[in-house]
This record gives sequence, structure tokens and C-alpha cells, in this order.
Amino acid sequence: MSLNWWQAPCQPLDYVARSKAIARQQQLTKPAGSLGQLEDVVIQLAALQGRERPRLEQVAISIFAGDHGIVAEGISAFPQAVTGQMLRNFVNGGAAISVLAKQLSARLEVIDLGTVSPGEALPGVMRLQLGAGTQNFLHGPAMNNTQLGHALQAGRNSVQRAQLSGCELFIGGEMGIGNTTAASALACWLLQRPASELVWPGTGLNAQGVEHKARVIDAGLALHRHVLDEPLDALRALGGFEIAALVGAYLACAQQGCVALVDGFICSVAALLAVRVNPACREWLLFAHYGAEPGHQHVLQALQAQPLLDLGLRLGEGSGAALAVPLLQLACSLHNDMATFAEAAVAEVSA
Amino acid sequence: MSLNWWQAPCQPLDYVARSKAIARQQQLTKPAGSLGQLEDVVIQLAALQGRERPRLEQVAISIFAGDHGIVAEGISAFPQAVTGQMLRNFVNGGAAISVLAKQLSARLEVIDLGTVSPGEALPGVMRLQLGAGTQNFLHGPAMNNTQLGHALQAGRNSVQRAQLSGCELFIGGEMGIGNTTAASALACWLLQRPASELVWPGTGLNAQGVEHKARVIDAGLALHRHVLDEPLDALRALGGFEIAALVGAYLACAQQGCVALVDGFICSVAALLAVRVNPACREWLLFAHYGAEPGHQHVLQALQAQPLLDLGLRLGEGSGAALAVPLLQLACSLHNDMATFAEAAVAEVSA
Repeated sequence: MSLNWWQAPCQPLDYVARSKAIARQQQLTKPAGSLGQLEDVVIQLAALQGRERPRLEQVAISIFAGDHGIVAEGISAFPQAVTGQMLRNFVNGGAAISVLAKQLSARLEVIDLGTVSPGEALPGVMRLQLGAGTQNFLHGPAMNNTQLGHALQAGRNSVQRAQLSGCELFIGGEMGIGNTTAASALACWLLQRPASELVWPGTGLNAQGVEHKARVIDAGLALHRHVLDEPLDALRALGGFEIAALVGAYLACAQQGCVALVDGFICSVAALLAVRVNPACREWLLFAHYGAEPGHQHVLQALQAQPLLDLGLRLGEGSGAALAVPLLQLACSLHNDMATFAEAAVAEVSA
Repeated sequence: MSLNWWQAPCQPLDYVARSKAIARQQQLTKPAGSLGQLEDVVIQLAALQGRERPRLEQVAISIFAGDHGIVAEGISAFPQAVTGQMLRNFVNGGAAISVLAKQLSARLEVIDLGTVSPGEALPGVMRLQLGAGTQNFLHGPAMNNTQLGHALQAGRNSVQRAQLSGCELFIGGEMGIGNTTAASALACWLLQRPASELVWPGTGLNAQGVEHKARVIDAGLALHRHVLDEPLDALRALGGFEIAALVGAYLACAQQGCVALVDGFICSVAALLAVRVNPACREWLLFAHYGAEPGHQHVLQALQAQPLLDLGLRLGEGSGAALAVPLLQLACSLHNDMATFAEAAVAEVSA
């Protein structure tokens, strides 16, 4: 078996920088541990970036969009044309992630991997056109090997562009009507759970719609059962172009030494796939938030993730990750800029 | 009985602005409700600020410091001199809240209400000198009526200065070795719970220290039991100058129409006291985080608060509130700057 790029080693952590960061935390003018989870995350960042004082000033956001053949089964409350319409909204500045990227002074790029109604060419949208959406996974695999390979590579290319631009934190976002169904099907396979435990209304289904969605997913899992051996088999059979691009991006982040901040349910499913493909990539993934979807909790648990936020978000687009960026930046500022007990001439805890 | 300033009415909410904000949220290019708690908070801000599109650009932080006579009972792991030493650290930029204020471009003021070792005059620290710390509440009331009145007014004065500077969000912080003991005693009285349910290690006590702290609090509650009728009686008998200043500040925020963002355990106890004194002030209080202290959870529950963050913070100084500011600001940006479905020509949910 030839070695594919996604199986290549991930960057190792710098344990010297980690030790120095731990020692620094203990000297800062605050009770030890009083910044809670922010102390843990900044120590992890020191190990990843290989410097006692990590920084996350340059943020790059890539939004991956794709359409889904499974929409033909009536599993979404929004019409499929919305995927293409939202591409214009991303580049015109009206979408949530556009507003957040502007506030964070983050680099934002939009990649259309394959939509059913691409419409006019949009300045600022990269068109890859891997297909007019994926195939309906109730009739066959969602994509072929060539499409899968291109989608994984598209994510990797985004990370390379981000790094060339000086990126210190990579955020992947997704847009694709129907992609909670694809992601839920993947999560069911990854976690070996029935659809009824993971599915929920998504962006506006009623109880009947939710039951139907679960039946569609269970039917898809049954159809492809015999060919699902490896994570990338499942991704090809049940996934989406944008989900595959996220998998490629997370793997590339770990291989190229760029910290990734994972957004919501769909991104977390992609992260779990990436970890199953190449387990060492887990260290390079930070998790932004506990989403509203019950399936998200299960996926985060499988990843042993401790997200920063818990606000009931379920928008996607990378928006939850973008919302967590200031917390990470402030954690770095506290670590880097606070005085030590010695510098400030403040007494420490009595022995 | 003459009416004291803290009993005067609070500013009413603007329900027209609230309705407009709700209507706007429903038109933005995202699934309804997909920004979770951030949608609720921005609608509340619209009602408080009386504008469909609220803003929180100007942030004012006031740190109230005071020493505590109860420290003589050995309830803190840090020496009492730290209160005074930290005042210098606040104005020199080395404390956590100093770093955060700088990053947020927030106005920061430091008020020393009464410390045992004020040392040299510090440029940037307002000295009120209500006493060399409070009295040990095992020997009598922590403060007298005059001190209580001055401390409440000091908090109110801070809010007035903040508003004169154009403040749109007020954060109160606290510093005072021993003040978790005073705040825990107040929480026990407010919630009618024994100290053993609320006390925890604070900034570094061992199990024996925690038991001792609980016994000290129970003894204080027993001593003052017969004079604790009203919230301000409890504050005078068991509280601290900085806790009283926070109570005054939260009441003044509500009366003067300035949104307050409440920090950790000690600030939340002050907030609960303020709400018991003048219940209408509750609407003007936003809550930043669930702290690490078990007592904090109980106090937040009594306030029916839904904080934004849950990171195991327990530093005080207003630091947890400062960390939540970017989330509130981004919630406003999303609400104010996202496109509507009509503006972006994006289809809505199918009927």
C-alpha cells in the first residue's frame, strides 16, 4: 500500500517550551490555577508553537461549501439554492462569518467545492466544481475516489495558503444545505450509534422531519455497511465535499504545524475523521464550543475535547470558532504580559 | 422611614426597541435561533440601551479594594499585605485585569476603600480610607453605618464617573485578601445555607483550612443572627468595603441606565444583595461566567443568571467579566452588521 499524504507524520510538540510556559504560569501575579481552562490552553499553545509565549494574532478562516445529493430525500428545511446564495453573502460581508472575520481582522477565503447552482462567477469565491453537489447516498456513494482526493487536497491547499500569509490560527468553516445529514451519518458510523441518538432538527425541522432524517441516515448506513472499513471509505460513501476538505485541512494543520480551532458539529465530525486517519493530529486541534446538537456532544466526547464556549450555537460557517478567538488571544496576552510575583513585588502564598 | 438613594426606581426597559431587535434577529441570514444565547443577550441589550442596534464599545472597569478583619482568624493562604501590593500591580499594568483592560481599550480605575498597609501614595489609585480594613466579624460588625454608607456611595460615584466618560458597559472588580470568607458569609445568609455547602479552598487552602473557614463563617452568622433582618444589615455585619461598593455600583447602574457585567463569586454575592435591596436592578445585570467556586453556582441560581462563560475562573479583579466583553461586542456586531434575507437575496426556510 502506498503512503498517502494524509498518513505522513504530524509535527511533534515542543516539551521544553511547554515546561517553560508551565513555570511562567506559576510565577504570574494570581493564585495558581485561577485562570482555569485558559491556563491549560495557553500551555498547549506554547507546546504547539514552540515558544514560551505563544501568540495568535494572525487568524485565517476558510469556508468550504458544497451541495448534497441527499437533499432529494427532503431532509432540510432550507431550499438547496441557499448554498450558492450564501456564497455571495460570504464575500459581500453580510454573513455571520463575514462580520466576525472583519471584527477579528482575519483573512477570509471562500471555496466552492461543488454546488448545484453556482450562478454567476463571484469575485472572492474559488470555484473547484468537483461536481454539482454529491450524489444521493441512498443510491450509491456520495462521491468517487477522485472527488474525495481533490476535496481533501483542497483543504490542505487552504492551510498552505494560510501559512504563507503568516497565519497562527486556522479556522475551517462549512456551508452546505443538507450537510448535518451527511455529518450525522458519518458520526453514526464513527461512534457506532443509531441515527435516533444523534439526529436533531438541524436548521428547522419538526418532529416528523427529524424522524424522517433518522430513517434516511439509517438506510444509508445499511446500504453502505459492507464497504465501510476505513474512515475515508465512510467519508466517500456518506460525506460531503466540504466535510472532506475540512478533514484534509485539519490533517494538513497538524502536519505543517499550524494550530486549528474547530467549530461546530460538522467540523467536529471532520476532526474525528482526521483523528481516526492520523491520530497524532489530535494535539493540533483546539475546540471552540459545545453546539446545540446532541450529536455534537457525543463527537466531542469521543475526541476528549474541552471546548471553550457553551452558548447553544448551531450556525456553522466557522462562526463559533471565530467567536472563541478573542478568548484565546486574551489568554495569550495574560500569559505573556502579566507581571510575575518577583517583578511586581507581591507576596506569594504562605508556605 | 426616609427613602435612601438605593431605594429609588431603576430605569425602565424599552420594549419597543426590544421588539424591533427581535424582529431584526428573525430577518438576519442565519437559521432562527442559531446564535443561541448571543441572540438573547443582544435583545436584552437593545431593551436596556433603548436602541434596536445596541453597542458596547466603551467599557469602564472599576476595581474596589479593601482589607478584612476576619483575616486574623487565619482564613486566607495569602498574607494580608497582598491587598496593598496588588494595588500597585493594578496601576503598573502587571495584574490580569490591567492586561485585559489594555487589550479591550477599557477605562480602568482603582479605588482603595480601606487597606491595612496602604504604603506610599500611588498615582492612579483613589484612596478613600474608610478604615484600616473592616473589623473582625467574630468580634462585632465588620463596619459601622457611616462606613457602609460611604462604601455604597463610592460604588455609585464610580458609575457616575464611568457614565461621564461615555461608558456603555460597567464592570466592577474586587481585590481583598479574605473577601471570599466575607462573601461566603453573606451568601450563607442570603441563601439560608450552612457554610459547609458554600465554602471551598479559595486561593489555596487545604482541607483543614476549608473546615476552619466554614467554622469561622458559621460562628459569625450565629453571632450576628439577631440583627440580620435586611440585606444591608448583613452587608454591614459580615461584608467588606469593596463588596459594599459593588452593591452600590450595581444599584447605581440600574438607576442610571448603564449595563453592568458581573464578574465572579464575590461580585455575584454583591449583585444578589443589590437585587434584594432593589429587585428591579436585576434586569441591568449581565453575568460573565460560572466560577470554580461551588458557592458561585448557588448564588447564580438564586439570581436566575445565565452566564456566558464556564472556564473554571476564580481570579476576581473583574477579570472574568473582562474576558466576556469581546463575546458581547461580537454579539452586537453580528446583530447590527449582518445582512437580512432580503438584503442578501437568500431564500428563507420553506413554509
